[in-house]
Amino acid sequence: MARQTTLIRGARVWTGVGDTPARSLDMLVEGGRIQALEARLSTPPGAQVIDADGLLLLPAFVDGHGHLDKTLWGRPWQPHSAGPTVAERIANERSLLARLDHSPQAGSERLLRHLVTRGTTTVRSHVDVGTEVGLSHLHAVLATRERCADIATLQLVAFPQGGVGPGAGTLDLLDNAVLEGAEAIGGVDPATIDGHPTAQLDGVFAIASRRGCALDLHLHELGETGLAAVDAIIERTLSLGLAGRVVISHAFCLGELAPDRLDPLLARLAKADIAIMSHGPGGGWPRPPVRRLAEHGVRVFCGSDGVRDAWSPLNTGDMLERAYLVAYVNGLRDDAGLELALQMATSRAADVLGIEAGTLEAGAPADIVAVQAETAAEAVAAHPPRCWVMRRGQIIARDGHAAAAPQT
Amino acid sequence: MARQTTLIRGARVWTGVGDTPARSLDMLVEGGRIQALEARLSTPPGAQVIDADGLLLLPAFVDGHGHLDKTLWGRPWQPHSAGPTVAERIANERSLLARLDHSPQAGSERLLRHLVTRGTTTVRSHVDVGTEVGLSHLHAVLATRERCADIATLQLVAFPQGGVGPGAGTLDLLDNAVLEGAEAIGGVDPATIDGHPTAQLDGVFAIASRRGCALDLHLHELGETGLAAVDAIIERTLSLGLAGRVVISHAFCLGELAPDRLDPLLARLAKADIAIMSHGPGGGWPRPPVRRLAEHGVRVFCGSDGVRDAWSPLNTGDMLERAYLVAYVNGLRDDAGLELALQMATSRAADVLGIEAGTLEAGAPADIVAVQAETAAEAVAAHPPRCWVMRRGQIIARDGHAAAAPQT
Repeated sequence: MARQTTLIRGARVWTGVGDTPARSLDMLVEGGRIQALEARLSTPPGAQVIDADGLLLLPAFVDGHGHLDKTLWGRPWQPHSAGPTVAERIANERSLLARLDHSPQAGSERLLRHLVTRGTTTVRSHVDVGTEVGLSHLHAVLATRERCADIATLQLVAFPQGGVGPGAGTLDLLDNAVLEGAEAIGGVDPATIDGHPTAQLDGVFAIASRRGCALDLHLHELGETGLAAVDAIIERTLSLGLAGRVVISHAFCLGELAPDRLDPLLARLAKADIAIMSHGPGGGWPRPPVRRLAEHGVRVFCGSDGVRDAWSPLNTGDMLERAYLVAYVNGLRDDAGLELALQMATSRAADVLGIEAGTLEAGAPADIVAVQAETAAEAVAAHPPRCWVMRRGQIIARDGHAAAAPQT
Repeated sequence: MARQTTLIRGARVWTGVGDTPARSLDMLVEGGRIQALEARLSTPPGAQVIDADGLLLLPAFVDGHGHLDKTLWGRPWQPHSAGPTVAERIANERSLLARLDHSPQAGSERLLRHLVTRGTTTVRSHVDVGTEVGLSHLHAVLATRERCADIATLQLVAFPQGGVGPGAGTLDLLDNAVLEGAEAIGGVDPATIDGHPTAQLDGVFAIASRRGCALDLHLHELGETGLAAVDAIIERTLSLGLAGRVVISHAFCLGELAPDRLDPLLARLAKADIAIMSHGPGGGWPRPPVRRLAEHGVRVFCGSDGVRDAWSPLNTGDMLERAYLVAYVNGLRDDAGLELALQMATSRAADVLGIEAGTLEAGAPADIVAVQAETAAEAVAAHPPRCWVMRRGQIIARDGHAAAAPQT
């Protein structure tokens, strides 16, 4: 925790939707938190002064959905080699990571240190757990969490990429993953991957209910198969009293529905308080209409998804660019829409993850990104380079590079 | 024209699809052209030496579809205010540009100077022509073309944004625009904008046939309306002997067809040698599947479209990012797909525009962009900042900023 007191002078500060940043605000940072935010503050004795010179300050980004353990970031360029189906991609990933002698610890740390230079200081990462890899990926990313505790907060989802299988092996591993530090249990395409519409769901819901942890379930399945899974997730969330603890990630099938069928389903998702993570899908995948979801009370957020891994090279891990992609894919052109996309990468993601982050106001942690832009909407539209990144009151990156280790 | 002789040492050079850049090549530039490209070249007396230090060299970008005359680039942030339909956007644009006392000359020059810093040295710009604005936008952008001749090549399309109307007014203006320097005639949504499926097409095809100029026609229309327009364009292209001279820009309706109907249509487009411009649409617009188009012999290319104008704020004008968006929206993940997207912003665009640009080989103009990347595929996936931009042998931008005026 930073003991340094810092006064940031003359910044534009984004505090919420529809908020035209003031021409000039001063921000006092002390004890790693924002202590005051006013038109003009006097400099406390001994304080460091940062002249923001009209830069726009945004909350540091919250990446709500990553796969740190499987990234090839920082390695030589690896041409994409997987077939188009989810099953082909899983199989290709296994053989590729084995061939490359992939290190989940080194990879996850390389990527996390990169993400920080782009303004992300919180990541929820899914981490593969299964009978082949056991808990080795989890242990690797737990080590990264420890090694990077001064620059980022990591939340881990124990993710059964290959399904839970017919025996208890993977479910036991998921259960142990929670005991060892994972905050949530994952899941993926129950009907397609496990060959049964609800067996996987019953397994992971049982663990969540017993351990009191969150659930964050990948759902790529389309059409009636996907919708049946959404139904089954809503039912179990309500019957087990897990409202507010469950996320469906991707939920492409919501993007296939006309309003007459979508809106009643959104009402049910809102009632069960099931949040939806959408990364703004391309490649012909249907997109859940995030603005409509938000208007119907469904919590929406976004994440970078895999960054340069066996699934896709089409991701830089930059969450401001991700907000842009969410806006682009969804056709969000007005300021409210652009700010919704930015909230999905800041306050709305923090809200779903249950963490204190994603807003700039007195009392909040001093996790801040500075960019050259007039308004938050412009920051999303232009996604300019990050001038500096602050975490808990310390500058941890400047001009896209890690800053020297902080003096504490 | 640069008299300076320059030797670029130790670069990776992208010369085409499937081309893994060599670790190190030397490039000799003289008289504004690439004179030699070899593993090791000796330094001619008096030559300037640029150490590329492993940077990847790409051809400078060709922006095949812009609207320079209507950009709000460089002005204070303007929240998007238009309704969703094409007609609403046209009406909103008129009132907004009037209210802002918009200068098409100043705006187009500001944007063009920005595009150059991002590596674009050729732009085909549609320019509004009609009974309200007359040829004023054309004259403005012709002035910009003159003022920026040392940094970029501009190709102009006289664009009847409001349709050609019932009288001859706009058609006469379009005709005059060609005499005054426009290389092509445009058009837009004949059935929707002019209320007749073929009247606008007959008008603009007649000018193209008479003047021997190219045609580049916006087509946003969907469903059978859009397909009828495509049919009418194919018929007129063949009957007037204009094969190879006609572009359909956007052609969203091609993205709605299943292969059984799409493929025969692509065969007909290929036979008429009608090229398709796709900017990689978001916001729920169907996307012409560019890889399939290319495989069926249809020439495809891309452009930035409007950059921060009344139509949309969702565009930075960066053509390497545009290639990324084309790849993202189309799900092009393998190297061949990523390089197709890059060709759409370089060699394939130059080919459609009929200009000498877009390739790096001995004899080609020395229009070059240097980036930090291992391969062209990586350059698209990561779209990193531009280290420097060369045009006709002169460095015109470094690190995102215009370089000092060249010494000639």
